[in-house]
Amino acid sequence: MEPKIRTLRDQIDVLNLEILEKLSQRAAIAEAIGELQTQTGSSHYDPVREQEMLDTLTAANEGPFSDATVKSLFKQIFQASMHLEVEQAKKSYLISRAEDRPDTVVRVGEIEVGGNGSPVLIAGPCAIESKEQVEFTAERLASRGVKLFRGGAYKPRTDPYSFQGLGVEGLRIGREACDRYGLKFVAEIMDARDLAACEEHVDVLQIGARNMQNFTLLRAVGRSSKPVLLKRGLSATIQEWVMAAEYLLYEGNPNVMLCERGIRTYEPTTRNTLDVSAVALAKQETHLPVFVDVTHSGGRRDLLVPLTKAALAVGADGIMTEVHPNPAVALSDQKQQMDFDTFDAYLEATGYHKKLTPERHEVYGF
Amino acid sequence: MEPKIRTLRDQIDVLNLEILEKLSQRAAIAEAIGELQTQTGSSHYDPVREQEMLDTLTAANEGPFSDATVKSLFKQIFQASMHLEVEQAKKSYLISRAEDRPDTVVRVGEIEVGGNGSPVLIAGPCAIESKEQVEFTAERLASRGVKLFRGGAYKPRTDPYSFQGLGVEGLRIGREACDRYGLKFVAEIMDARDLAACEEHVDVLQIGARNMQNFTLLRAVGRSSKPVLLKRGLSATIQEWVMAAEYLLYEGNPNVMLCERGIRTYEPTTRNTLDVSAVALAKQETHLPVFVDVTHSGGRRDLLVPLTKAALAVGADGIMTEVHPNPAVALSDQKQQMDFDTFDAYLEATGYHKKLTPERHEVYGF
Amino acid sequence: MEPKIRTLRDQIDVLNLEILEKLSQRAAIAEAIGELQTQTGSSHYDPVREQEMLDTLTAANEGPFSDATVKSLFKQIFQASMHLEVEQAKKSYLISRAEDRPDTVVRVGEIEVGGNGSPVLIAGPCAIESKEQVEFTAERLASRGVKLFRGGAYKPRTDPYSFQGLGVEGLRIGREACDRYGLKFVAEIMDARDLAACEEHVDVLQIGARNMQNFTLLRAVGRSSKPVLLKRGLSATIQEWVMAAEYLLYEGNPNVMLCERGIRTYEPTTRNTLDVSAVALAKQETHLPVFVDVTHSGGRRDLLVPLTKAALAVGADGIMTEVHPNPAVALSDQKQQMDFDTFDAYLEATGYHKKLTPERHEVYGF
Amino acid sequence: MEPKIRTLRDQIDVLNLEILEKLSQRAAIAEAIGELQTQTGSSHYDPVREQEMLDTLTAANEGPFSDATVKSLFKQIFQASMHLEVEQAKKSYLISRAEDRPDTVVRVGEIEVGGNGSPVLIAGPCAIESKEQVEFTAERLASRGVKLFRGGAYKPRTDPYSFQGLGVEGLRIGREACDRYGLKFVAEIMDARDLAACEEHVDVLQIGARNMQNFTLLRAVGRSSKPVLLKRGLSATIQEWVMAAEYLLYEGNPNVMLCERGIRTYEPTTRNTLDVSAVALAKQETHLPVFVDVTHSGGRRDLLVPLTKAALAVGADGIMTEVHPNPAVALSDQKQQMDFDTFDAYLEATGYHKKLTPERHEVYGF
Repeated sequence: MEPKIRTLRDQIDVLNLEILEKLSQRAAIAEAIGELQTQTGSSHYDPVREQEMLDTLTAANEGPFSDATVKSLFKQIFQASMHLEVEQAKKSYLISRAEDRPDTVVRVGEIEVGGNGSPVLIAGPCAIESKEQVEFTAERLASRGVKLFRGGAYKPRTDPYSFQGLGVEGLRIGREACDRYGLKFVAEIMDARDLAACEEHVDVLQIGARNMQNFTLLRAVGRSSKPVLLKRGLSATIQEWVMAAEYLLYEGNPNVMLCERGIRTYEPTTRNTLDVSAVALAKQETHLPVFVDVTHSGGRRDLLVPLTKAALAVGADGIMTEVHPNPAVALSDQKQQMDFDTFDAYLEATGYHKKLTPERHEVYGF
Repeated sequence: MEPKIRTLRDQIDVLNLEILEKLSQRAAIAEAIGELQTQTGSSHYDPVREQEMLDTLTAANEGPFSDATVKSLFKQIFQASMHLEVEQAKKSYLISRAEDRPDTVVRVGEIEVGGNGSPVLIAGPCAIESKEQVEFTAERLASRGVKLFRGGAYKPRTDPYSFQGLGVEGLRIGREACDRYGLKFVAEIMDARDLAACEEHVDVLQIGARNMQNFTLLRAVGRSSKPVLLKRGLSATIQEWVMAAEYLLYEGNPNVMLCERGIRTYEPTTRNTLDVSAVALAKQETHLPVFVDVTHSGGRRDLLVPLTKAALAVGADGIMTEVHPNPAVALSDQKQQMDFDTFDAYLEATGYHKKLTPERHEVYGF
Repeated sequence: MEPKIRTLRDQIDVLNLEILEKLSQRAAIAEAIGELQTQTGSSHYDPVREQEMLDTLTAANEGPFSDATVKSLFKQIFQASMHLEVEQAKKSYLISRAEDRPDTVVRVGEIEVGGNGSPVLIAGPCAIESKEQVEFTAERLASRGVKLFRGGAYKPRTDPYSFQGLGVEGLRIGREACDRYGLKFVAEIMDARDLAACEEHVDVLQIGARNMQNFTLLRAVGRSSKPVLLKRGLSATIQEWVMAAEYLLYEGNPNVMLCERGIRTYEPTTRNTLDVSAVALAKQETHLPVFVDVTHSGGRRDLLVPLTKAALAVGADGIMTEVHPNPAVALSDQKQQMDFDTFDAYLEATGYHKKLTPERHEVYGF
Repeated sequence: MEPKIRTLRDQIDVLNLEILEKLSQRAAIAEAIGELQTQTGSSHYDPVREQEMLDTLTAANEGPFSDATVKSLFKQIFQASMHLEVEQAKKSYLISRAEDRPDTVVRVGEIEVGGNGSPVLIAGPCAIESKEQVEFTAERLASRGVKLFRGGAYKPRTDPYSFQGLGVEGLRIGREACDRYGLKFVAEIMDARDLAACEEHVDVLQIGARNMQNFTLLRAVGRSSKPVLLKRGLSATIQEWVMAAEYLLYEGNPNVMLCERGIRTYEPTTRNTLDVSAVALAKQETHLPVFVDVTHSGGRRDLLVPLTKAALAVGADGIMTEVHPNPAVALSDQKQQMDFDTFDAYLEATGYHKKLTPERHEVYGF
C-alpha cells in the first residue's frame, strides 16, 4: 500500500476515536434528556428541535461536506440515536422474543398450542351451511382425532350477493356439534359488535385476512380473554402482521396465534403464494405460535400435502385446512376443500395420522 | 386446400348449425327454469343437479371424447350459460354502466363531483393535529379556491404506539374550521360505532384502503346518506374494489365516489404504484366518480405533479392530496405532504390554478 | 321441487344427450381434419376459417341467444376443441409427466440427481474471486462430503461498474480446484458465444434467473450435452419456467434440472419470496429434478436452515447454497454467504450431515 | 420546558458542533485517500479495513453505547461517507441528469426524439408475417403521418412451438417496405450474433423486456452506433432499468431511448400494470428520451387511448403501439392490436392526428 495512504489512514484512526468519544458523551446526555422526558410524559421525538439543530449545524459548516451532506449525516446520527430508542422499544414490544421471553403456549381447553408440543390441526368446512353438514363433519373429524373444529358463521365475501354465512344461528350449530363431539370451536369474527355472541359460542376467535388491519376489531378482540387466531392480510408485510398482533397483546389478550395464509403475487396457477419465510421469521422474532392455512395458501387440493409438509418443516405450530362432506356442492371454496377420503389420505401423507389420537363417538344418525 | 378437408369442413358446418339449434332450444328451456326459480326464490346455481347431468352424459358417452373431455366440454357449456346469467347479473349490479346508466354526479353541498364537470380537488393535512394547524391550513386552502378539506381524526396506524388521531375532538376541530372558511369536510371513518359522530361533523365519509373489505363498515356506511369516498385496498383487484362499492349502493347509499391510491408492488422507489388503468376501467365499467390520491400513490413529493397530470388525463373526476403548514414536523407522512409554497407551485404546474375560484376569507389570527 | 321445473329439466336432459351426440360427431370430423393437416404440414389453427364459421352461425341465429352470445358460446366450443388439442400437445411436451414418463435422473459424473435418490447439495462461493479462495473453499467442502461445487466466473450485475467475474480465468481456477478435490463444477453461462469455453471447464451449465427467457442462450445450451441447471426468472410464472426447460429438451439436451430461487414480491424483509408451491408443481407436472437455491430465496443467513427444511419437505431433489471463506470481504452477496462454522451448523441443522459422505483430501497449504 | 432539559440541550449543541468539526476533518482526509486510490486504480471500498476500524472502535468503547451500537453507528458514518461517494458516482453515471446534462435528443434520420419536441409515434404489427401484411400496414401508417414503423422479425416466445418470427427474411421485408414509404424501421434484436444483420436492415434496435438484463446483448448493442430502444423488464425496478441503459452508454452508444411497458402485478384484468411513476422518474433522473408501449402495458384495446393520454401527460417523449391489417388473424397478440379504423379513432382521441403530418404515397397495389 501507498505510504501516503497509510499515513492518512492513521489520521482517520485517531479521528474515529475522537468522534466516538464525542458521540458517547452526546449519547449520555441524550439518555438523560430521554429520562426527564419520560418522567414528564413528553414525547421523545421533537422535529422542531431537530430542525433547529440542523440549522445550527449547516450555519457552522465550512466544508468539505456540502450543507446537504451535513444535514444528511446528522440526520443519520439522529436516526441512529432514534434507531437505538426504537430498537429498545422493539425489545419492549409485547410480541418480541427479546429479553428471552419463552414461547407463548396458548391453551384452548386441554389443547396446548405452541412451545415444543406436537403440531395441532384445525379442520372443518369453509362455511357453516346446515346442522347436518356440521354434525356430519364434526363427528368424522373427531373420529380421526382432530380436536379443533373450524367453520365460518360470518363469511367475508367480495360480492354482496354471495352467501354471507348463517350468523348467530351458525354459531349455535357449531357450538352444539363441538360440544357433542368434544371439539373446540374456531370461528371468524368480523365485527366488534358481534363480540358478545362470539364469546358465548366460540373457543377461538379468528380474525380474517381482510380484517388484519381493522384496528377497531383488533382492539375489541384484544380486550377479550378468548384465544385469537390472527391471519396475515392478503398483502400484508411481516412487520404489519406482527404489529397487528401487538394491538391484541397491548389491549390485554396474551392468547394470540398467528396464521400465514399465502400472499398475493403475480403467479396465476396458485390462489396465493405460501410464504414459508414469513413463518420462520414470525417464529424467530415473536414468541407466538404460528399456524399455516394450507387451503387458502395454494387454493388447490393437490397442494395440500406438500404445503403442509413445508409448513411443518419450517416450524409451524399447527395447520389449518378445510374439509367438507361434499365439496362439489359447498356454498364456497368448492375447489379447495377435501372430502373425507381425501382427508384420510392427507392425514396419512402428512404424518398427522400418527400425531392425532382418534376418539370414537357414537355416529350421528345422518 | 385439400379437397378431403373441404368435404369434412362442409360436414362440420352442418353440425355447427345443428348444435346451434339444440343449444338454442336448451337455452330457451333453461331460461324458463330460471324464471320459475326467481319466482319461487330458489337459487339458480344447483351443483347437485349439475353433477347429475354430468354423470348422465359421461354414462352415455361413446367417444371419441374421453369422459373427462365430455365433462369438461359440458362444464363449459354450463359455464357459458352461467356466464350469460352472470353477465346479466352484472348488468344488474348497481354500480354497472350497463343499460346506459348515466354518470353519477355526487353533490357535496353545492359542489358537484363526476359527470362532465371540472375535476375537483381535495386537500388538507394527513391528520388533524391541533386547532391551530387546521385553522391555518383551512384558511390557506380556501384562499386558493379549494372547496373540499381533508383531515383525519381517526388514523389507522400499523403500530399501536403511533399517533392514532384526536378522535371526536378532531372531528369538532375540522368541522369548525370548515364552517369558518366555507369548506366541506372529508374525514375517514374506521368503525361502524363512530357513524353517528361522523355523520354529525363530516360532509364526506372516507373509507380507507385498509377497510375496503371491512364489510360491516361498508354496510353501515351504505345505510347513511352522506357521500362516501371509497379507497381501493392496498392490493385489491379492480373487481374487489368495485364490488366493495356495490355493498354501499346495495345498502341504499347512491353517493359513492371511488379513489385509486396506488397498489403494492415490488418497486421500492415509490411507496405504491399508481394504477392508471384501474382509473380508466373504473370509469368504463361503473358510473361512479373516480378520484386519485396522488399523495399515497407515489409517496414522494416530486411525483405529485406528474401523477396528477396522468390522473386527470386518464379521466379522474378529482384529485386528493395532502397539505400541511410544516410537513417536517407533521405527526405522520412527513415525506409526502406539501407546504404552501410547494402547493402553490403544484396548482400552477397541474393547471388547477385555472380551475379553482379562490374565495378570500379574513385571515385567521395565527 | 316445482313439477314444472321437473318437466323442463327432463327436456334439458334429452337435449344434453343430443348435443353430446352432435359434438361427438363434430369432434370425430375435426380429428380427421387435424390428421390431414398434420400430414400436409399445415397449421391446425386457422382464424379465418373460425371467423367464417362464426359469421355463418350468427347469420342463422334466431334467438333466444343474442348474436354475441352465440359467438361466445361457439368460441368456447372451438376453444374446448382447441384446448383438447393443446392438452394433447401438452402431453407431448417433452417436459411433461404425461404418459407416465419416469423421473429424469441427471447424472453428473457418478452423482445422480432426481428420482428417489437422496437430495444433493451444491455449495460454493457466489463468485470465483481468486485461486486461494476457490482452493480453500473446495477443500473444505469436499471434506464435508459436498460433491458439487458452484462458483461464478461470469457474473450478471445490475451495475456495469460492479465486479463482473474473472471470465475464462475463473473457469480455469474452478476446474483445477474441482479436479484436485474430486468435485463437479457448476458455473453460470451468460452468452452462447462462451459455450465452448464453458463446456471445456464446467460439469453443469447454470442458466441464471435473468437469462431464463434468453431464448438464444437456451437454444445454444440445449444443443450441448452437458447437464443444465435452469433457474426460475425473477418474476417468471411456473408455466414460463417449465416452458424455458422445454426449449432445452426440444433442442436435444435431456439433462435438465430446474431451480427455484424465490420470486419478486412486495415483502421487504426478504430478498425474494421462496415459492414452495412452485417446487411441488414443477415436480408434479414435469419429470425433471428440481433444486431450491436457498441463498437467493431469502437473501438472509438466518433463513438458510428453515428454507432448506421446507424445500426438502416439499420434495426438492437438491439444495444450492453459497459458502465463502470470509463472507464479510466477498466481492458480492456479503450478507447471505456462510462461512465454514456457519456451514457446519447448517449441515447439522438440516440433516445434511447424515446424507453426505465426507472424503478427506490433503489440505491445501493455505 | 424543564430548565434541566434546556441545560442538557445546550451541551448537546456544543457536542454537535464538535462532532461536525471532527467529521469534516475525517471527510477531508477520506477525500484525499479516495483521490490517491483513484490515481493508483485501487478500489475505494475495502471491507477488511472497515472491519479493522470497527474492531478498534469497539475495543475503545466504554459506553453508554453497547459495542453493537458503536458498530452500528460507525457503520452508518461509513455508509454516509460511502453514500456520498455513491452519490458522486451517481452523478458520474453517464445516464444521470447530474451536472445539468441537457436532454438527449436521439436522431433517427430526420426524426428527433426527446428534448422539447412533439411526442413521436411508433406503430406497426407485433410480428412481421408476410410481405403483403407489411406493405399494406406501412403504406397506411405513412398515409397517417407515422414515421417510425415497428415489426418484429425475431420474436421471443414462451413456447418453443409458437411462431418465432421470419428472421433475416423478416428484416428484409421490413426494410424494403420502410424504404418504399419513407419510414424508419424499429425491430427487436435478441442475439448479439444477429447484430450485423440487424444493423444492415434496421434503423432502431429494440431490446425487449425479457432481454433487459441480457448483459452480453447490452454490451454488443452498446458498441453499435444505431439508436436503441430499451424496454423495461417485466419486473425490473426503475434502478435496474436505468442501469441497463448505463451499460449501453458505457459501451459507447449515446443514442438510447427507454421504454416503459407495464410491470407484472397481481391485478388480473390487465396484462401488465402501466407504471407512470417510472416514466416520470426516468425523465427526472436521466437525460434520455422515454417511450411508453401502451399495447403491452394494458394488453387491452380499450385501454390504448387512456393509457396514451396518461403517458403523454406524464411527459413521455413517444408512444409505441401495435397496428395490424386484421388483428383477428394475427400470429400473435390478437387481442391487443388495432385495425386501421380503430387506429384512426385512436389518433383522433389521443390528439395525435394534430401532431402527425401525413405524407401521401402511391397506394401499394394490394
